[in-house]
Amino acid sequence: MDERLTHFEDGKPRMVDVSEKPATLRVARAEAFVHLPEPAARALAEGGVGKGDPLVVAQLAGIMAAKKTSELIPLCHPLPLRRVRVDLDFDRERNAVRIEAEVKTKAETGVEMEALTAASVAALTVYDMLKAVAKGIEIGPVRLLYKSGGKSGTWVRES
Amino acid sequence: MDERLTHFEDGKPRMVDVSEKPATLRVARAEAFVHLPEPAARALAEGGVGKGDPLVVAQLAGIMAAKKTSELIPLCHPLPLRRVRVDLDFDRERNAVRIEAEVKTKAETGVEMEALTAASVAALTVYDMLKAVAKGIEIGPVRLLYKSGGKSGTWVRES
Amino acid sequence: MDERLTHFEDGKPRMVDVSEKPATLRVARAEAFVHLPEPAARALAEGGVGKGDPLVVAQLAGIMAAKKTSELIPLCHPLPLRRVRVDLDFDRERNAVRIEAEVKTKAETGVEMEALTAASVAALTVYDMLKAVAKGIEIGPVRLLYKSGGKSGTWVRES
Amino acid sequence: MDERLTHFEDGKPRMVDVSEKPATLRVARAEAFVHLPEPAARALAEGGVGKGDPLVVAQLAGIMAAKKTSELIPLCHPLPLRRVRVDLDFDRERNAVRIEAEVKTKAETGVEMEALTAASVAALTVYDMLKAVAKGIEIGPVRLLYKSGGKSGTWVRES
Amino acid sequence: MDERLTHFEDGKPRMVDVSEKPATLRVARAEAFVHLPEPAARALAEGGVGKGDPLVVAQLAGIMAAKKTSELIPLCHPLPLRRVRVDLDFDRERNAVRIEAEVKTKAETGVEMEALTAASVAALTVYDMLKAVAKGIEIGPVRLLYKSGGKSGTWVRES
Amino acid sequence: MDERLTHFEDGKPRMVDVSEKPATLRVARAEAFVHLPEPAARALAEGGVGKGDPLVVAQLAGIMAAKKTSELIPLCHPLPLRRVRVDLDFDRERNAVRIEAEVKTKAETGVEMEALTAASVAALTVYDMLKAVAKGIEIGPVRLLYKSGGKSGTWVRES
Repeated sequence: MDERLTHFEDGKPRMVDVSEKPATLRVARAEAFVHLPEPAARALAEGGVGKGDPLVVAQLAGIMAAKKTSELIPLCHPLPLRRVRVDLDFDRERNAVRIEAEVKTKAETGVEMEALTAASVAALTVYDMLKAVAKGIEIGPVRLLYKSGGKSGTWVRES
Repeated sequence: MDERLTHFEDGKPRMVDVSEKPATLRVARAEAFVHLPEPAARALAEGGVGKGDPLVVAQLAGIMAAKKTSELIPLCHPLPLRRVRVDLDFDRERNAVRIEAEVKTKAETGVEMEALTAASVAALTVYDMLKAVAKGIEIGPVRLLYKSGGKSGTWVRES
Repeated sequence: MDERLTHFEDGKPRMVDVSEKPATLRVARAEAFVHLPEPAARALAEGGVGKGDPLVVAQLAGIMAAKKTSELIPLCHPLPLRRVRVDLDFDRERNAVRIEAEVKTKAETGVEMEALTAASVAALTVYDMLKAVAKGIEIGPVRLLYKSGGKSGTWVRES
Repeated sequence: MDERLTHFEDGKPRMVDVSEKPATLRVARAEAFVHLPEPAARALAEGGVGKGDPLVVAQLAGIMAAKKTSELIPLCHPLPLRRVRVDLDFDRERNAVRIEAEVKTKAETGVEMEALTAASVAALTVYDMLKAVAKGIEIGPVRLLYKSGGKSGTWVRES
Repeated sequence: MDERLTHFEDGKPRMVDVSEKPATLRVARAEAFVHLPEPAARALAEGGVGKGDPLVVAQLAGIMAAKKTSELIPLCHPLPLRRVRVDLDFDRERNAVRIEAEVKTKAETGVEMEALTAASVAALTVYDMLKAVAKGIEIGPVRLLYKSGGKSGTWVRES
Repeated sequence: MDERLTHFEDGKPRMVDVSEKPATLRVARAEAFVHLPEPAARALAEGGVGKGDPLVVAQLAGIMAAKKTSELIPLCHPLPLRRVRVDLDFDRERNAVRIEAEVKTKAETGVEMEALTAASVAALTVYDMLKAVAKGIEIGPVRLLYKSGGKSGTWVRES
């Protein structure tokens, strides 16, 4: 692990130079949770039937957001994404939606931010669809689960 | 509170009709937390001096993201934002960055999603700048603090 | 009907001046058809079950595209959309998907282009999801059905 | 030809994994037609003189739209386009504008959607410039003419 | 004139609050110059014939850029533009292209940045089309000519 | 140097074909100046203290704009940027801000437009932050300093 702020040179922000790095296969997986007060959980349980399932809306929002990552995060490199998967599972017992996003690329730098952005935007979309029912919805934790590829190699979250 | 999924009609997603609603002043405030493992907190404490402060990068990312909300959240209405404020405070004792975003508009619908999106993207940007130091950073909770305006009136998170 | 090219002044393209026009309620509806060769129709009929329905993907793509109209059509005014509805119906007998998009705003100019763009992008998305099965899919006609509001008033397609 | 919906896994939409596929030269060509009622055709014939030619506006809109394809079509991969050509020809006898778009890339997946999107948006732009004259304009068919490259090889529309 | 940095509060950047200001008609005009070395000027003079005129490409780029201003300038408010005009004139004697952009809106804040952005992006597009001929092209000055509307009233550049 | 307008074929604009060109390392550097009337220079000198430095806002705007170049310049190829650096220096004696932008990629075509766009948008952002103090700010010259890579090799501005 590098303890410097790699996005800074002489105290100024940069999109860091990756031109000398080889393009290698990169994978990242992230998760996000959305905690629903009971009325929101009930609405989702009842509304989540049939082809208009709200979780599909959030899933697509997550996939599309992965492609917008470098527009949102100022110092992120634009990367040619080769796979984006976003899954949402609603746990009625815990009244929580768990989101898992996985992104792959073959590039000079990793896709952690893309996976985290996909998971975050999917979570925000769940919020949006349920906010008329309950404003007390909370998102979190949003966190990285796994990354592979590049000089720093494979990293797996300890459970 | 309405217990239906207002974004759905006959089980299908919609951008809901707000054409009959009056444009009124709307305010929303949201917060997000970023929890830093010790090495990341130390790097931020040490790097956060001078004009290249990483928190300014995140602050601007949050402001710009508020303007992109309706591109990210599929069923959100595009709204003419009239104020966006994003503040970040780093608490070295708890090793956490607290982000607060406030958005104002005069419109037919509220700006909760804009405030939550600003806070989330600012949090993701903090992650991005510190991820070379520690991948175990966690974001959350992300949640609404306050909203006013519109038919549902004022709502304040209970502490 | 005005027989001039209103987007041109002295032979040069303009985003025309609507600053003197009052903001009134505007509605537009458009339709688009996607004609499927038999293998694509069969795949859609079989795949279109359960919550991963391909038509929901196209529906959301259409809604989101309505919001991007002024980015795509060079001389279009950016408008504050207040409702977007996109519906897709698959007619297995004719092997065609019919898309209907409706857009509302309260503005100085109409939303015909928003409705047509929503319908077109929904149609392109249907194509995208079925193109591995059959490249001979055809889109059309794409056309306006109805518009109301503004100086030119209500217009309804003759059937 | 593959008869499955390749954008779906276990009934859920995905941006499919192309990380194992080699980057090869890909070409796609698509066409779109815009059918003009007589007043619109006359306006175009008369207005289409000099350097403000409306067809140039549509041509540029098509080229720029090709670059936005992966923002519009939810499950499309972002691709590094290496050539985009859009041509429009107005046939005064048939009162129709024919648009042909050609896109090239060197990538893991094809550019059919980019060519179809370019042709569609150019057609919508023609509509926009002539809609004050005649709302009964119709677009279609929009269809693929040719594609080459990739595992599925060359495909040519039968005439 | 206000001598404070209005975009800053307590030393931190903000999108300033315009919610208390009335929406009034706002106009801004800006100009930009592109200075061409002789080979570039000759290529433009010779190429600028017929319907593919390079200046039309720049003109459209300017109009479309006006609509993107609030995406580009971090603290700019998104505004509902009601007119955008961009004109380019090539002065073969001085080997310079003069660009004039005019933007109108009815809003709480002005459109100076929109006019300046339109002029700048049109100038960059002229550069792009001529850069294969001569890299020594220079852009400037880019400056405001006129603004009206709002509390600060009308301002006209002294010549 | 090629004296033709390479973006045109048969008098029509194209995104030119770079599919036969090898991807090589490309670097471009550009500069832009912002000339400040005395009140604006004084406000910048006084406001430019502490972590809310206005020049950091402009610096980030420039970095993010580099990533948007192909959306702004109609015939530009989308390129995978590998480094973006934007620096701003305020010369209180000359009351001018000098901006230097450097962009790197490994691609089939160069990044001159990306460097020029980054410098221009950073300059516009300086204008935006100081326009309440003095509208007579002028931008220019904006120009290329250096480029390397590709068939046309290295080019350096003569001073």
